[in-house]
Amino acid sequence: MTDHTPHEPTPKTPVVRLIPKAEARAIRHGFPWVYANELVTDRRTRNLTPGTIARLEDANRVPMGTVTVNPASKIICRMLDQDPEAMIDQAWFAARLSRALAHRARLYAEPYYRLVHAEADGLPGVIIDRFGDLAVVQPNAAWADMLINDLCAALQEVTGVSTVIMNGTGRARTLEGLDEKTDVLAGTAPEGPVPVPMNGATYMADVMGGQKTGLFFDQRPNHAFVAGLSKDARVLDMFSHVGGFGLAALASGAVSVLAVDGSGPALALAEEGGAAMNVSDRLTTRKGDAFDVLAALAEEGETFDVVVCDPPAFAPSKPALDAGLRAYERIARLAAPLVAEGGYLTLCSCSHAADLTKFRNASARGIGRGGRRGQIIHTGFAGPDHPLLPHLAESGYLKALTFRL
Amino acid sequence: MTDHTPHEPTPKTPVVRLIPKAEARAIRHGFPWVYANELVTDRRTRNLTPGTIARLEDANRVPMGTVTVNPASKIICRMLDQDPEAMIDQAWFAARLSRALAHRARLYAEPYYRLVHAEADGLPGVIIDRFGDLAVVQPNAAWADMLINDLCAALQEVTGVSTVIMNGTGRARTLEGLDEKTDVLAGTAPEGPVPVPMNGATYMADVMGGQKTGLFFDQRPNHAFVAGLSKDARVLDMFSHVGGFGLAALASGAVSVLAVDGSGPALALAEEGGAAMNVSDRLTTRKGDAFDVLAALAEEGETFDVVVCDPPAFAPSKPALDAGLRAYERIARLAAPLVAEGGYLTLCSCSHAADLTKFRNASARGIGRGGRRGQIIHTGFAGPDHPLLPHLAESGYLKALTFRL
Repeated sequence: MTDHTPHEPTPKTPVVRLIPKAEARAIRHGFPWVYANELVTDRRTRNLTPGTIARLEDANRVPMGTVTVNPASKIICRMLDQDPEAMIDQAWFAARLSRALAHRARLYAEPYYRLVHAEADGLPGVIIDRFGDLAVVQPNAAWADMLINDLCAALQEVTGVSTVIMNGTGRARTLEGLDEKTDVLAGTAPEGPVPVPMNGATYMADVMGGQKTGLFFDQRPNHAFVAGLSKDARVLDMFSHVGGFGLAALASGAVSVLAVDGSGPALALAEEGGAAMNVSDRLTTRKGDAFDVLAALAEEGETFDVVVCDPPAFAPSKPALDAGLRAYERIARLAAPLVAEGGYLTLCSCSHAADLTKFRNASARGIGRGGRRGQIIHTGFAGPDHPLLPHLAESGYLKALTFRL
Repeated sequence: MTDHTPHEPTPKTPVVRLIPKAEARAIRHGFPWVYANELVTDRRTRNLTPGTIARLEDANRVPMGTVTVNPASKIICRMLDQDPEAMIDQAWFAARLSRALAHRARLYAEPYYRLVHAEADGLPGVIIDRFGDLAVVQPNAAWADMLINDLCAALQEVTGVSTVIMNGTGRARTLEGLDEKTDVLAGTAPEGPVPVPMNGATYMADVMGGQKTGLFFDQRPNHAFVAGLSKDARVLDMFSHVGGFGLAALASGAVSVLAVDGSGPALALAEEGGAAMNVSDRLTTRKGDAFDVLAALAEEGETFDVVVCDPPAFAPSKPALDAGLRAYERIARLAAPLVAEGGYLTLCSCSHAADLTKFRNASARGIGRGGRRGQIIHTGFAGPDHPLLPHLAESGYLKALTFRL
């Protein structure tokens, strides 16, 4: 046994080991996960507390890096650092966050963005969205939940934000065996929604009780693309949430926007954003089921120059794929007849399971069954504050297709 | 036999017929081509002049539309109009061009764009790029070559351009059995290169003797994305042609751009663009083979904040795919070490045969072999003035990937 400096792991750092058949090469080349069937899971490993920091070795006991272990998850190890001696402390978090911040500071003039996008920012399972002086953290993996205080301190140190909210809701936490909880980790919770400038619009984000972190930054480039088509246009924003596409279109000179959503509180935030932008006279909201509303608008003989449908994930998992693709097709079929001749239809999917080709085919089929033909003029993904590891790029969940009809 | 109005085809309009096994359904749903093995090719059909306008019938003699026939091409019919009685004359061209123009006029404040992108704009095999008061037409299918005068007249009528250049070069014409020729169809050829404003930069397009129509409009959104990363950055623009990425980066505040290309005339146009923008002091050009220059820059110990490689198609066809992917990997391997820590590497492919997944994998592998790791922050395609039919969307040729290293 050698001497160790304070920055080496203690002698008690557990060791976990790949089975001989595991894909050690992929992991050495940057694949960030070890699946449960690739690890020697003896009783000692099975008994590790979810979130334990450990040293990963290959089947020949060659050290591969520092990982976090969650015996309760299919993703039993997540790679934290190629250095098997890494110390996962506040300074380590600060280094990761500094790198993440440098990228966003280059991208955006104002501090409203996804600051940390999990694995691709070197913080597996961690999502951090920044809203100016406030950040919302989603620690969707056990290790981050366990080390939340170091993470929070580093976040304040690196960014200078005064308020840090922990949003502990969502499916990802369930898969990790984590509880649902929302908490104020630093500073004070805002009194009401937080105004967010993006693409010339102002969005109202409910950072305490909203979906995910309260706002979807991922659609920013697709919002911008659709807004560029929307000058002097009549726009229908289906599944509007807080007005993502609609308010950007109004900022770019749309003559009218009808925002439709199933959630009254989301529509109220859209209206509040419209009021802050002084465009309330051009914004109408309608609460209802999207399929019903699309059918009703067709009955009413309405048409729009620009129609956007950005539904929740219809195919969140492989078993749901077929039904999900049918739902995407149905949306396209109902929406296409509402588009004026020469107008534009944007269809989005945030389903991991529906890849681009499948989603495009379902969309084109739906447009055809809706009695129209379309040409694809734009294929967009999540914005650059949502980096992806190349190894996980197939799982790029967000797709946006704009058709000219 | 019925009476016929002047807008019906003459009784002499030839009829061509699908074989029973042909994919009539796909064609009815918008697939724009009939392959030679799907058509009854009796002696009469084989003897049709390439470019002949004909009526297409299915195997049961039900009319399907108006097509153009080229017995010399693998794509033996191209669908021109769903109406089997369509008259393909100047008025018909004008209607197609008006629709194409309406879309571009909505997209761009200034009249510099691809006006017609072949099948997706309803003019199979026809490319038209517009440079203000001038248009360059590539009639890459026999029918358009034959009807070039009607097309030219309609183009002037609809857009008001005074000069129309016909650029009859390139591989697509060879496949149709067409000669190479360049001609001034209307107006007078410009004395020198034409200045083109795009993304805040000024490009110099050699519309008479350049590659394709003289400028590549397709990369516009990817130029803009990279320019957005380039403020205060040192930029390397490999395969720069007339300075596509480099001049846009300079317009966005890059501190320096090194543009590298194998063509002296292309680099001279890049320098001329730089002079027109008054940024010559920040632009350096270097003529040479890209692989050699990348190796030399590594020898010299140079690094850049932003590196772009936009090579010609390394995999233009399926037989060239494996060699092409190796070339893309090699480019990535040589370029990655030149990127400063935390900098950006943009890799492009305009190869039909290399799909997004294959190109991404080759790029990521090359970056790894160059001793670096990267996260994908942007996946871009050709701009919205390059629409695609959904049926041909897999063939979207242009891919741009930006990695953060």
